[in-house]
Amino acid sequence: MRLAMVGLGKMGGNMTRRLRRGGVEVVGYDRTPSVAAGLAAEEGVIAASSVADAVTKLQSPRVVWLMLPSGEPTETQIKELAPLLAKGDVIVDGGNSNYKDSQRRGAWLAEQGIGFMDAGTSGGIWGLENGYCLMVGATPEVAKIMEPVLKALAPAPDRGWAHVGPVGSGHFTKMVHNGIEYGMMQAMAEGLELLRGKQEFALDLAEIAELWRHSSVVRSWLLDLTAEGLKNDQTLDSVAPYVADSGEGRWTAMEAVEQGVAAPVLTLALQMRFASQNSTGYGYRVLSMMRNAFGGHAVKKAGGGK
Amino acid sequence: MRLAMVGLGKMGGNMTRRLRRGGVEVVGYDRTPSVAAGLAAEEGVIAASSVADAVTKLQSPRVVWLMLPSGEPTETQIKELAPLLAKGDVIVDGGNSNYKDSQRRGAWLAEQGIGFMDAGTSGGIWGLENGYCLMVGATPEVAKIMEPVLKALAPAPDRGWAHVGPVGSGHFTKMVHNGIEYGMMQAMAEGLELLRGKQEFALDLAEIAELWRHSSVVRSWLLDLTAEGLKNDQTLDSVAPYVADSGEGRWTAMEAVEQGVAAPVLTLALQMRFASQNSTGYGYRVLSMMRNAFGGHAVKKAGGGK
Repeated sequence: MRLAMVGLGKMGGNMTRRLRRGGVEVVGYDRTPSVAAGLAAEEGVIAASSVADAVTKLQSPRVVWLMLPSGEPTETQIKELAPLLAKGDVIVDGGNSNYKDSQRRGAWLAEQGIGFMDAGTSGGIWGLENGYCLMVGATPEVAKIMEPVLKALAPAPDRGWAHVGPVGSGHFTKMVHNGIEYGMMQAMAEGLELLRGKQEFALDLAEIAELWRHSSVVRSWLLDLTAEGLKNDQTLDSVAPYVADSGEGRWTAMEAVEQGVAAPVLTLALQMRFASQNSTGYGYRVLSMMRNAFGGHAVKKAGGGK
Repeated sequence: MRLAMVGLGKMGGNMTRRLRRGGVEVVGYDRTPSVAAGLAAEEGVIAASSVADAVTKLQSPRVVWLMLPSGEPTETQIKELAPLLAKGDVIVDGGNSNYKDSQRRGAWLAEQGIGFMDAGTSGGIWGLENGYCLMVGATPEVAKIMEPVLKALAPAPDRGWAHVGPVGSGHFTKMVHNGIEYGMMQAMAEGLELLRGKQEFALDLAEIAELWRHSSVVRSWLLDLTAEGLKNDQTLDSVAPYVADSGEGRWTAMEAVEQGVAAPVLTLALQMRFASQNSTGYGYRVLSMMRNAFGGHAVKKAGGGK
């Protein structure tokens, strides 16, 4: 089995390493040429100088796996790639694309006889060692072609990957997975903040997180990582109280609205991240101004001056 | 080491079994005499006919571990037990008591020279096999006395138990643990409902839950149990959409209010359980009536008649 990997960043680079170690031949392309050259030296990757060059280094059916930022980069690459491919070839999008984009792209490629697979990929920087959790949407024919690759990337050939449904369903499943992740993370964060807030007990949060890893109901991989992080420094003074969010948390909240299904915890976990990102706090200023207006309550003055 | 276990139900019974298998002598008392008799035959427990009888079967320092429903049953038992004990003896509350009750009881017992330990206990019906996760509040002296017992109950002598702080801090830590559990459960429930709601993908929820167990970010013990449950029947038609709650979820929400700390996900996970328990839906009726009143929107009629 041989495929081309386009995008050799944190995810694509480590997936390439895992594929190589699993005996899959990889033609690697990255817009920074030294990256593919490095993987060529390190893992025997066949470095390509362009996506077109990568395609010429494949045999039919040619498989090109994209690990690119979602949105414009992925869209542009698929549009440029399609004319270079022929009937029966396959494009895989392993990035975090919106599932509706994947449905649209899959339909557009199908018109040209090109197969498409959306592979929602979880595992982050730990995937190289532990394997990746892969949620795959594709026709049965395309899924069959990709099976050896999925087995090499997964934690083991028989687990951690599944062909969950038609094109789009892989990214849909990954989207909901990340929505759940937001909720679980927020639940832990709130709990730890309450533990820390009870100052009279002077609790050792690193000890408690470690303790919970063993036989408790909340034990989880997220708790493992949290316990490890708190062990190093439980004050977290060096970490700003600002939480970024990526597409999938937002899309999950929108999906709940579209379905008309209540998902308040997933939605609120996202909203709390928005609140953390808001440094101006205009809404809070409005509330304080209103309290003053109707009740004469004191307004805390904004700092800055002396 | 020998102790008395009072309350040999689901938790107390299995903890007694684990203690016995760990070489701890147990004097067992349950208000249903056949339960202690059964454990005597099965595990060599020394059956007691009353709490007073159990106390006479102990040597100083006498240790009585209570596994009783929180609130009145635990309160009454501690009040009855204290006069039977002497300076240096220890009462352990391994139930799900409110940490403020434990602080009050600990102080009251301390006045009499009796030690107290609050042992928040997680592990449920799996604790017998896997061990219990124990969060313990006590003075250093009492914790020292209890160490061999904690090591026998825990998953291993060196992990899954910790003396986290003074009296009350064990039940406080367990309370927050359960609050987190509510949030994690609700996050998973919402995600699975969204997966199911996307009917065009006809997703196999049992397959996806199983898939996520391997190398995904949401892997956890709760997911393990969920995957197992969905494997048996993913329609869940036989399970009523009604979720009970116990004290600790409520106390966590109250703690957040007392501390003035935002914990919206833990709070909302609890509120969603309340919503599931509400069969009359009076608030929804009010909303529907109001929409009709200001906008003439149709009111869906309540069923029942023809």
